Amino acid sequence: MKIAVYPGTFDPFTLGHLDVINRAKKITDKLYVAVANNSIKKTLFTLEERLEMLKTVIGTRDGVIIDTFQGLTVDYCRSRKASAIIRGLRALSDFEYEFQMALINRKLEDEIETIFLMPSEQYTYLSSSMIKQIARLDGDISPFVPGPLIDKIRKKTKDED
Amino acid sequence: MKIAVYPGTFDPFTLGHLDVINRAKKITDKLYVAVANNSIKKTLFTLEERLEMLKTVIGTRDGVIIDTFQGLTVDYCRSRKASAIIRGLRALSDFEYEFQMALINRKLEDEIETIFLMPSEQYTYLSSSMIKQIARLDGDISPFVPGPLIDKIRKKTKDED
Amino acid sequence: MKIAVYPGTFDPFTLGHLDVINRAKKITDKLYVAVANNSIKKTLFTLEERLEMLKTVIGTRDGVIIDTFQGLTVDYCRSRKASAIIRGLRALSDFEYEFQMALINRKLEDEIETIFLMPSEQYTYLSSSMIKQIARLDGDISPFVPGPLIDKIRKKTKDED
Amino acid sequence: MKIAVYPGTFDPFTLGHLDVINRAKKITDKLYVAVANNSIKKTLFTLEERLEMLKTVIGTRDGVIIDTFQGLTVDYCRSRKASAIIRGLRALSDFEYEFQMALINRKLEDEIETIFLMPSEQYTYLSSSMIKQIARLDGDISPFVPGPLIDKIRKKTKDED
Amino acid sequence: MKIAVYPGTFDPFTLGHLDVINRAKKITDKLYVAVANNSIKKTLFTLEERLEMLKTVIGTRDGVIIDTFQGLTVDYCRSRKASAIIRGLRALSDFEYEFQMALINRKLEDEIETIFLMPSEQYTYLSSSMIKQIARLDGDISPFVPGPLIDKIRKKTKDED
Amino acid sequence: MKIAVYPGTFDPFTLGHLDVINRAKKITDKLYVAVANNSIKKTLFTLEERLEMLKTVIGTRDGVIIDTFQGLTVDYCRSRKASAIIRGLRALSDFEYEFQMALINRKLEDEIETIFLMPSEQYTYLSSSMIKQIARLDGDISPFVPGPLIDKIRKKTKDED
Repeated sequence: MKIAVYPGTFDPFTLGHLDVINRAKKITDKLYVAVANNSIKKTLFTLEERLEMLKTVIGTRDGVIIDTFQGLTVDYCRSRKASAIIRGLRALSDFEYEFQMALINRKLEDEIETIFLMPSEQYTYLSSSMIKQIARLDGDISPFVPGPLIDKIRKKTKDED
Repeated sequence: MKIAVYPGTFDPFTLGHLDVINRAKKITDKLYVAVANNSIKKTLFTLEERLEMLKTVIGTRDGVIIDTFQGLTVDYCRSRKASAIIRGLRALSDFEYEFQMALINRKLEDEIETIFLMPSEQYTYLSSSMIKQIARLDGDISPFVPGPLIDKIRKKTKDED
Repeated sequence: MKIAVYPGTFDPFTLGHLDVINRAKKITDKLYVAVANNSIKKTLFTLEERLEMLKTVIGTRDGVIIDTFQGLTVDYCRSRKASAIIRGLRALSDFEYEFQMALINRKLEDEIETIFLMPSEQYTYLSSSMIKQIARLDGDISPFVPGPLIDKIRKKTKDED
Repeated sequence: MKIAVYPGTFDPFTLGHLDVINRAKKITDKLYVAVANNSIKKTLFTLEERLEMLKTVIGTRDGVIIDTFQGLTVDYCRSRKASAIIRGLRALSDFEYEFQMALINRKLEDEIETIFLMPSEQYTYLSSSMIKQIARLDGDISPFVPGPLIDKIRKKTKDED
Repeated sequence: MKIAVYPGTFDPFTLGHLDVINRAKKITDKLYVAVANNSIKKTLFTLEERLEMLKTVIGTRDGVIIDTFQGLTVDYCRSRKASAIIRGLRALSDFEYEFQMALINRKLEDEIETIFLMPSEQYTYLSSSMIKQIARLDGDISPFVPGPLIDKIRKKTKDED
Repeated sequence: MKIAVYPGTFDPFTLGHLDVINRAKKITDKLYVAVANNSIKKTLFTLEERLEMLKTVIGTRDGVIIDTFQGLTVDYCRSRKASAIIRGLRALSDFEYEFQMALINRKLEDEIETIFLMPSEQYTYLSSSMIKQIARLDGDISPFVPGPLIDKIRKKTKDED
């Protein structure tokens, strides 16, 4: 597989996302990690903050490009000449949503294949929204997010109040 | 089965809904396709627009009546002397919600049976909310909704901005 | 719905099966309860015993015919001019198997619709195999099967030893 | 098990919750039924009203203490010297959410175990949100909530309008 | 909880079983780990071998008794004055089977409660049958079973040929 | 992705398998379609017949190699220098089994990634065992298997009798 896209909201970026990126890197030549700039879905972190988090954690690795996109995922894939969309599949609840998205994307663009990877089982039940909830209740988020992001996420959830 | 009700929000009406109606028609003498006028659930299309969409697509078929209702589905069924509620069951995520609704309806009115039909597998992952999301991102919704509705749905989602 | 078929192995017949028949009767003019005579699937009770159990419990009700069939369910339906197959949908594990069967049947005969009914929630986790297992361990099966069948099932599972 | 906590939003309290409390009481010496005072999650009933409902239904039973808490469930458990969290597991949709919560809680505090109990099957599809929806549509909620709460819930959902 | 039973086939005993026992010990005064002597279900290891494996791994811990039983689990519980059955709930496929068993057990004996514990997420997809399959294919089973059992299991699966 | 393995029993080969191969081909340089020669699992078709069916349907395509293997899938992958295992993920029932296999394979060999592809929705409920069952009942299997295999499968299931 030459070029693939790993799209997401990354609000915030978690160790589960990092795990998927590491696995995807092994099977792709070029991987776009693409932050969705979706005006409809409300996020805690701004687009700039989410991009910044990704750059902090991933930095400049060979073959991984941090990017942002608007509109349909398949349109973005075409613009990057990507032939595949990478998605992590953790648990049952992911299964149906991800399959729905993959089928819709296939109907919109038949040439782009969705590839599902299984994150490490320790991230099976990890989600961005769960992390925000723990941070809001002053819980310890260090087992769930990359070290350099801990303080940023804590501060942000405090600022909400 | 003499009289049955196919209730829904139809926001908007999809090819999956049409498929269920065609199947339900084969096993009923009279089928009420009933648009829920639920003031709590926010819809993109007004009640009038949703009724209009149904009339455009279904028109006047023998044995199919397009209608609207407020309040409990079982109360509406009684008012129409219907002995069954028709529901499409597409995928796992439907399963639990639909079973919950069916059991609640059975507790509220024991004489009305819920009948589950399986839409064509090409509509397994189709939903009204997915269609709205694609339209908002300027995607092609023509594989998912009846032809005469395409422009209405596109225009409406543009008007949101 | 004029004519419908409720096919099954009924090895043995349970209160859950009875519940489905009672619900199906309300929405059909004529209901064939059809015992599958499937030489591949091994059963505890012979075809004759299973037919006998059904006759004991259901007797002669208006509009319910106890029958047996060999081969494909859709071929049997055609021979009885039935337009629908009735199936009970209890729990998640049923869901996938039943949907698979229904889609296969639809591919084999497009004109026959599968209709899913939801048994009473007290039968959600009831199955013929579970009843056989309890009987083999000398457990009380009276909450799960029609009264007149209790002794027959007990005796049969003892005879296995 | 000496001390356990049954946390919840109880918005409103249902017969399903009562069923779990009765089961949990049998296996604990002291059970804290703890109403979450979560400023993020919007509730129909105020904290005081939810506490009042619990006191009305449960009163003063030996070994059951009605309480309220803020912040993380595990922090509250520690403050009460509880070694276990009790949760009802009704249906598939509960399964994933509850497992996610239990794993997060285990990561936050390894010494506290989550214990899942299965409510009576008649409450399999019962939820607080379903009850609010029925009450809003003027449906009969008496099969779903303890008798003394019926009028309070009805009145509250009317006051919303 | 005074006395509880953790029943199983343990064919063979896995690290997942051990994890459940350790969790169950924390919430019980006395825990019977009870090997089912079920003549219907064919096992790879004899009853004696399975008991021996349990004794090797668990030895003599305070409050844990290794035992064997025949017949219904609830009958065994009564004979040991246990008020609860402990079961590990790993994944979705467990969910339905375990709920079915728990409801059946509740119908057979209302006073005994089934308690579900969640094993560590690293054992989410671990099963006795998977271990046997790996051993038969000469795979490394050391990540899945207690150290002292590795050779016994390997040898046994070799002897099958 | 340079080299990948698509392992299976292919008893018999279906249109769903063909669909997965076509999708996998697009994202791999070299794809081994590997027929499992597993002495434990009983198959209707011999290893030779299953290999023959694959060759008939797939023939000699660039980048697709038809092969057979014994023992662990990960051992075979290593012998072919493959970095990924391809699996089709059709429905919920696949999900848990496939995740279990993928996690086991990851524990056995951390460097080989399992990649899940989604077959066309028309094959969602298609399985080899269902096809055998239909053929045994003299049903039409032509919508489910590649044309050149229809007669072979029919003949084989007749020969069983």
